Amino acid sequence: MTEKEKMTIVVCSGELDKALAAFIIATTGASMGMDVTMFFTFWGLNILKKNEGGIQGKGFKQKMFSLLNRGGTKRLKLSRFHMLGLGTWMMKLVMKDSHYPSIDEFITMAKEMGVKLIPCSTTCGMFGLTENSFRGGVESLAGAAFFVNEARQSKVTLFI
Amino acid sequence: MTEKEKMTIVVCSGELDKALAAFIIATTGASMGMDVTMFFTFWGLNILKKNEGGIQGKGFKQKMFSLLNRGGTKRLKLSRFHMLGLGTWMMKLVMKDSHYPSIDEFITMAKEMGVKLIPCSTTCGMFGLTENSFRGGVESLAGAAFFVNEARQSKVTLFI
Amino acid sequence: MTEKEKMTIVVCSGELDKALAAFIIATTGASMGMDVTMFFTFWGLNILKKNEGGIQGKGFKQKMFSLLNRGGTKRLKLSRFHMLGLGTWMMKLVMKDSHYPSIDEFITMAKEMGVKLIPCSTTCGMFGLTENSFRGGVESLAGAAFFVNEARQSKVTLFI
Repeated sequence: MTEKEKMTIVVCSGELDKALAAFIIATTGASMGMDVTMFFTFWGLNILKKNEGGIQGKGFKQKMFSLLNRGGTKRLKLSRFHMLGLGTWMMKLVMKDSHYPSIDEFITMAKEMGVKLIPCSTTCGMFGLTENSFRGGVESLAGAAFFVNEARQSKVTLFI
Repeated sequence: MTEKEKMTIVVCSGELDKALAAFIIATTGASMGMDVTMFFTFWGLNILKKNEGGIQGKGFKQKMFSLLNRGGTKRLKLSRFHMLGLGTWMMKLVMKDSHYPSIDEFITMAKEMGVKLIPCSTTCGMFGLTENSFRGGVESLAGAAFFVNEARQSKVTLFI
Repeated sequence: MTEKEKMTIVVCSGELDKALAAFIIATTGASMGMDVTMFFTFWGLNILKKNEGGIQGKGFKQKMFSLLNRGGTKRLKLSRFHMLGLGTWMMKLVMKDSHYPSIDEFITMAKEMGVKLIPCSTTCGMFGLTENSFRGGVESLAGAAFFVNEARQSKVTLFI
């Protein structure tokens, strides 16, 4: 039996458009039989945070940062034309009209297709996040060495 | 006869600096004998849109979004220091003074060197764009499966 | 003797978070025995500029642009939540509290681990920068052909 080809995606951005691009590529790769790992770091962690998650972190500074940087799929903004929410809202309507999956549906699809969703332990440490901060179905935290090891075995590696 | 090495670039950003970086790398790859494919998605599609293209899309919401997101090489902004156009204008002057090609000249060069410029059919569908929305010399629309297939055969794959 | 596996990173962004992500990955790669090259272009050049470097460039336009785009590690901002400096300052405090290396410490570590830091000669030409504009330990300027050549030999190539 031959091993599956690997694809590894670092998701460092937390904007809705970048998140969609990442999940479109990841689910396409998985549907083509690739073994896909997504590694979430910095603002990318917001995509995996619980929508109803409260303030995270220990100590005043982490808590303040968490307040600014709530995260959750409902709070993702477009990287352009957010316009106090108007542009992002229109984009979601346009996607719905055209029957595109929402970002939540993409996350569910990715999970069902076996895509691994991994939060970066280094940035979780900085922001005071734990496995409890994230939605169900997310894998255990892992560090940069895990990512580099996946990437060096991958046919396709992207930084988004 | 040996096959050419492949390079595949996803252009997801629509800023002037990112577009220049993408075309500098693509034309350099082509000049070194590589077979280069650029795959334009989300804001990257703006780089390929006709400068004189009117409002695109079907229905009110796509038309509104198109109005905000006109695109065309003349409307690309720097990702930093745009400053209501002043910074972008100065950057273009600096490039001209130093005899660097403009982004339009880079697109023409890339085409002449055999670089394939491919709009992503998924995001074209979202934004209501058709092949008619783009400048001459652009290839047919293709989906994410096409990109993943190119990428898995490529020596170099970048997400810009 | 087998050759080391290569990793090549283009650093096109000049934000603190992107710079940290790039150096975390680069130093991790080096610690795992990889031969790592970082290629700095556009705003990424700011990471390598001297903090105390004055205005650079020849002629009025390059000098004006240099004034806007001073660079140096002390001037790097977060890509989100900079908030006139407040967010970036809090992020640095949070990192210090958790004993994470600062960006300056990461650059020193990377150098000591043999990571090569290379400014892109094309964008240096645009901005009027010379080898003198950069901190100690930076390699000679090199062009896009050098980057493509490294990338085609690399196991992992990222565009940040």
